[in-house]
Amino acid sequence: MIAARALDGIPEIRAGDDLGALLRGRVADGDVLVVAHKAVSKAEGRVVALAGVVPGERARAIAAEQGRDDARHVQVVLDETAELMRAERGVLICRTRHGFVCANAGVDASNAEPGTLVLLPEDPDASARRLRAALGVRAGVVVADSFGRAWRHGQADVAIGAAGLAPLDDWRGRHDPHGRELKATWIAVADQAAAAADLARTKDSREPAVVVTGLERFVTDGDGPGARALIRPPEEDLFR
Amino acid sequence: MIAARALDGIPEIRAGDDLGALLRGRVADGDVLVVAHKAVSKAEGRVVALAGVVPGERARAIAAEQGRDDARHVQVVLDETAELMRAERGVLICRTRHGFVCANAGVDASNAEPGTLVLLPEDPDASARRLRAALGVRAGVVVADSFGRAWRHGQADVAIGAAGLAPLDDWRGRHDPHGRELKATWIAVADQAAAAADLARTKDSREPAVVVTGLERFVTDGDGPGARALIRPPEEDLFR
Repeated sequence: MIAARALDGIPEIRAGDDLGALLRGRVADGDVLVVAHKAVSKAEGRVVALAGVVPGERARAIAAEQGRDDARHVQVVLDETAELMRAERGVLICRTRHGFVCANAGVDASNAEPGTLVLLPEDPDASARRLRAALGVRAGVVVADSFGRAWRHGQADVAIGAAGLAPLDDWRGRHDPHGRELKATWIAVADQAAAAADLARTKDSREPAVVVTGLERFVTDGDGPGARALIRPPEEDLFR
Repeated sequence: MIAARALDGIPEIRAGDDLGALLRGRVADGDVLVVAHKAVSKAEGRVVALAGVVPGERARAIAAEQGRDDARHVQVVLDETAELMRAERGVLICRTRHGFVCANAGVDASNAEPGTLVLLPEDPDASARRLRAALGVRAGVVVADSFGRAWRHGQADVAIGAAGLAPLDDWRGRHDPHGRELKATWIAVADQAAAAADLARTKDSREPAVVVTGLERFVTDGDGPGARALIRPPEEDLFR
């Protein structure tokens, strides 16, 4: 059995807040702590005030072409983007500098102070490792964001950072009860933990942190490879 | 809080088994029952004996091109496929007749009797509706399968059928605590329920059914639109 429980009483996070100190004592050995990236990004000061952004030519051109009146916002997205993959109906699908493919490079205005945008953490795996160290227990940590998906409507939460949790559970080469090899079974544990955690809170509640129990078998001694291991290199990708 | 608990004592399912009768009494009002599609497919007789399959010219050509020695298996995949999207490194990425994009059109040999392949249910939403009716309680039902994803390694479980559960939770037009409109927030509830359930069982255990509690707010009186509502039409898809 697994359970996911949102932690109450976490205040609105601001730049410089010590998220680890806020969460210490709330997480036990064997737990997996899933934190919405926005809380991590805000604590790390990964927030941009739009008033200080000067949109460049490309941002202004894309904004005009997409019928958007927010060239500054587009500039911030471009600053976070390694490759702009699609620009259509006002949405920019980007490969971020980390290698994630998501809308607007993860730059988001919702749940941000008016006039500001929240970026993804600079290095979400490092964020997860720092948070894990601060917890002082043998727990896994996942930094989560809501991503749109190819082929399917809606968003599901995925892991953009992880530490102390096996991000993938590889059954390839193991066998089913009939002795047949499980050729393709390779479970995205960290993404599914993020998805389970997302169901345990509501989007308008101030509940950035969820504790998932029952995943002890995936919690590791070391930090492990992180969510970086979940990124499929474009040249290997058959699903797009 | 949500919790996901695999039901024990479910026997290996065979064609003609009454899955509803096996699960009745194990699910309460407000629960969401997530069933691995394989149990549903087997009960519905959606199993093909390879010995009876005659591969056609296209299946033999694809098998040869992909270095596969199982043209019969390829034929079964093609029979389930509306559009073959990619064929590379032995993997066929297909749009199924239902509209799902997945490897091998969901046709799978693992956890199947030797010499047989398990197909996806003919109409997984109808399967979910029938199962829901058989349960006799106000519960949601999800039929789940493990799908690979664009851009990311590993698989996550998604809903291929649903009844009595809002498949999507639409926050677009609602507001965050700062009063800012949540422009893109549209949560794939049924997919996340499937992902949470997948974490509650192990792949080699015979635990096809998982009960998820804590999602009462998404359980509906009627059957609702089903997992069909999660399919993004190709012409709207920016994520591939």
